[in-house]
Amino acid sequence: MRILGAPIGAANIGLGSFGDELIRQGVPVHSIRWSPPPDGAEVSLRRLASVSSWVASANEVVVRRLHEARPLLVGVGRAIDEIPEMDALMFLHAGPAIGWEDMSGPMRGAVIGAVQFEGLADTPEEAIRCIEQGMVHFSPNHEHASVAPMAGIVSASMPVWVVEIDSAGKRATCPVNEGMGRVLRFGAFHREHLEHLAWMRDRMLPILRATLEILDAPPDIRSLIAQALQMGDECHNRHKAGSALFFREIAPALLSVEEPASDIAAVATDLARNEIAFLNPTMAGAKAVMDAGAGVPGSSVVTAMTRNGREFGLRLSGLGGRWFTGPASTIRGLYFPGYGSEDANPDLGDSAITETMGLGGFAVAASQPVLQSVGGTIEESLQITRSMYEITCAESAAFQIPALGFRGTPLGIDAREVVHTGILPVINTGIAHREAGIGQIGAGVVRPPMEPFVRALEALADMAPSAR
Amino acid sequence: MRILGAPIGAANIGLGSFGDELIRQGVPVHSIRWSPPPDGAEVSLRRLASVSSWVASANEVVVRRLHEARPLLVGVGRAIDEIPEMDALMFLHAGPAIGWEDMSGPMRGAVIGAVQFEGLADTPEEAIRCIEQGMVHFSPNHEHASVAPMAGIVSASMPVWVVEIDSAGKRATCPVNEGMGRVLRFGAFHREHLEHLAWMRDRMLPILRATLEILDAPPDIRSLIAQALQMGDECHNRHKAGSALFFREIAPALLSVEEPASDIAAVATDLARNEIAFLNPTMAGAKAVMDAGAGVPGSSVVTAMTRNGREFGLRLSGLGGRWFTGPASTIRGLYFPGYGSEDANPDLGDSAITETMGLGGFAVAASQPVLQSVGGTIEESLQITRSMYEITCAESAAFQIPALGFRGTPLGIDAREVVHTGILPVINTGIAHREAGIGQIGAGVVRPPMEPFVRALEALADMAPSAR
Repeated sequence: MRILGAPIGAANIGLGSFGDELIRQGVPVHSIRWSPPPDGAEVSLRRLASVSSWVASANEVVVRRLHEARPLLVGVGRAIDEIPEMDALMFLHAGPAIGWEDMSGPMRGAVIGAVQFEGLADTPEEAIRCIEQGMVHFSPNHEHASVAPMAGIVSASMPVWVVEIDSAGKRATCPVNEGMGRVLRFGAFHREHLEHLAWMRDRMLPILRATLEILDAPPDIRSLIAQALQMGDECHNRHKAGSALFFREIAPALLSVEEPASDIAAVATDLARNEIAFLNPTMAGAKAVMDAGAGVPGSSVVTAMTRNGREFGLRLSGLGGRWFTGPASTIRGLYFPGYGSEDANPDLGDSAITETMGLGGFAVAASQPVLQSVGGTIEESLQITRSMYEITCAESAAFQIPALGFRGTPLGIDAREVVHTGILPVINTGIAHREAGIGQIGAGVVRPPMEPFVRALEALADMAPSAR
Repeated sequence: MRILGAPIGAANIGLGSFGDELIRQGVPVHSIRWSPPPDGAEVSLRRLASVSSWVASANEVVVRRLHEARPLLVGVGRAIDEIPEMDALMFLHAGPAIGWEDMSGPMRGAVIGAVQFEGLADTPEEAIRCIEQGMVHFSPNHEHASVAPMAGIVSASMPVWVVEIDSAGKRATCPVNEGMGRVLRFGAFHREHLEHLAWMRDRMLPILRATLEILDAPPDIRSLIAQALQMGDECHNRHKAGSALFFREIAPALLSVEEPASDIAAVATDLARNEIAFLNPTMAGAKAVMDAGAGVPGSSVVTAMTRNGREFGLRLSGLGGRWFTGPASTIRGLYFPGYGSEDANPDLGDSAITETMGLGGFAVAASQPVLQSVGGTIEESLQITRSMYEITCAESAAFQIPALGFRGTPLGIDAREVVHTGILPVINTGIAHREAGIGQIGAGVVRPPMEPFVRALEALADMAPSAR
């Protein structure tokens, strides 16, 4: 837990109400939400404390790799062409592994839509029959160097962005954003939207591919994120600046593509009007960066956090591809008119990869409108980011937060600190309706369960040199 | 002077060092740079105090008009077609009226370039002969519902944006931005740049005009500024967000224009790469808004501040088109490599119309990178904006500053408060080389002289009911 370095007016440990009163009086309060470690965690913490230099040096390696990783947007193509293990009957999904029988409503809705989109069925009923008969199979995005927002269903012919990090030899994909409204990722599967997806595959994809080929250099995702953080994006729920900068960067090349002018205008209009178009390249970039930090024995840094609508799952760098899961949380949020918390599906989506890299909830102090839009205050947004420094082991050199004096974003979630301080990561997120076929009903903030962090620490402690 | 309403930890009046110490200790300080009114000003202040309700009710009218004004970008055309009094030998310039013999180096450079651009001369030497023989004539932009940055030279065939405010029946123009580097507005007149200006006139202008005609609705400048302030622009020196949002808004229409694809791509590239493209629509919008507030008898609100490189000039609403001038200030700034303050021309340009409407230096708290880029600190940027509330009589309903809890930008500079408090407006600005033909050498912050505020108040006091 690092307190030094943060400008402190007062430090508040434990019960929040003392700090709240100071905040009301205008005194800067550095709030530390400390609570005793959960049952069983103390043993793991003690065991890891006895090998602290083993963990620390591993975490240093991870942090260095995270600092060095520079994700570039090198291409766009159909999932089946860009994801090695993909086949025509494979459907990737968000979060840790889950079967059809356990999927929540919005994920089922997205699968029903995707099965029709791939031409395997003509109606939702027929799609459900195909699925129940076992014609298709499922696998988590994260196990294929892929990520996708919300339900996260990726099928063979969907267009995906491709990101590469040369220095680390890493590559990751994320689908091209489908736009807002009643879209597949929130579990809707309306005919018009499936037609829009087909247009994206048939007309948008070749034009985007030609655009990237014309560009002098591939878009630098790290640089675009760094700029967007200076312009009010926290780069998970808000991408207004990033999307405008990204559009501006590729537009001149887009105009030089040799395709029918009406198609180019349609692609430009689609991109120009989509204020979260840059979410998906950001996610692919974050996935590639965190994979660059994965697989360092002894490291307690979290390299993946994701949710399938039933379960939250995480990975530690020191434990490779192993998942540690717990029940997905309910979201504190604001709802569109006509909907309420009783309609909300539990936490869903791979997009928490942005928080895993220190954006979104971790960087919410960079985006005062985001927390406001879900009912929070500016002071809360500063407090949230400040508290995330308590559970991370570094600060980003590339990403800075103006409202905190250009301090680097919190980087490298240390599972030891999460368990020791009791401070859970803060994740910004959209809210899907719990039933298939409806779509987005709000947006909010959520914290994952503590249990998987405790279990992951136990597993790491079992790997420690003294234990072998 | 309004103190109530601002959250205050401590109020510091007079000597700044007391406040500085509190700031170092982390206590929020509301600094009031008070000094005794200048000689002769006390009489005017006393006379106006005796008719304070006359002034106050006039200022209320002005502020209501400023609140209501919604500038829309309705067109683009050649200056000679859009500015009624323009003729082929007329050259508009920044600031209050000035003749060739008194013009500073950068303004002379811009005139020399513009005379060649209009085909009146083939070489700089020939252009100077034409000018000295009296072939051309000069007039201030501000007297033709026009504004232009830096030297501000507008000649007959230059493309200008046209802004209208329906409710107020106001219209204003500002040239289309020429880009960065060795450009006319900073006094450079290189052959390649004159060719770029010709391309803007011949190819860019018809395409921009067709673009605006295709759009469903004219771009809403107020709305774009409001968004840009949430995204790190202060809307004078920084237009990164505004330019990206503006480009994104017009790009789909731009792509539908029926002109050769290579020309459209060139226009899109020019706009997409120019991070201050939106400065000029912003200036035209501010000019139309401030003209909507002009001409209300009794009002002490400043409706124009501008500089011709020798003199600073201002207008008060209650005194219509009359100018009050004083010597142009030197700029506190940072210089490009190889240049220093000894190379700098004094303060220059109509762009202080943005400060007159409460942007730029007044809104610098919205743009923490801007002051940093000229050597200031974040705390300074907050203090500057806070101090501007001391000399304004309202807060914008449309424009908000995230870092000040979404407080409205300071609106309506009250010349009485400037004189009474001794706090001069803060203006962000570019720095031109003092010699003709060189161009931009830096950027910085400047305050105008006090004298014209004092003289304007005297004139207003002479108009007061008791004095007539």
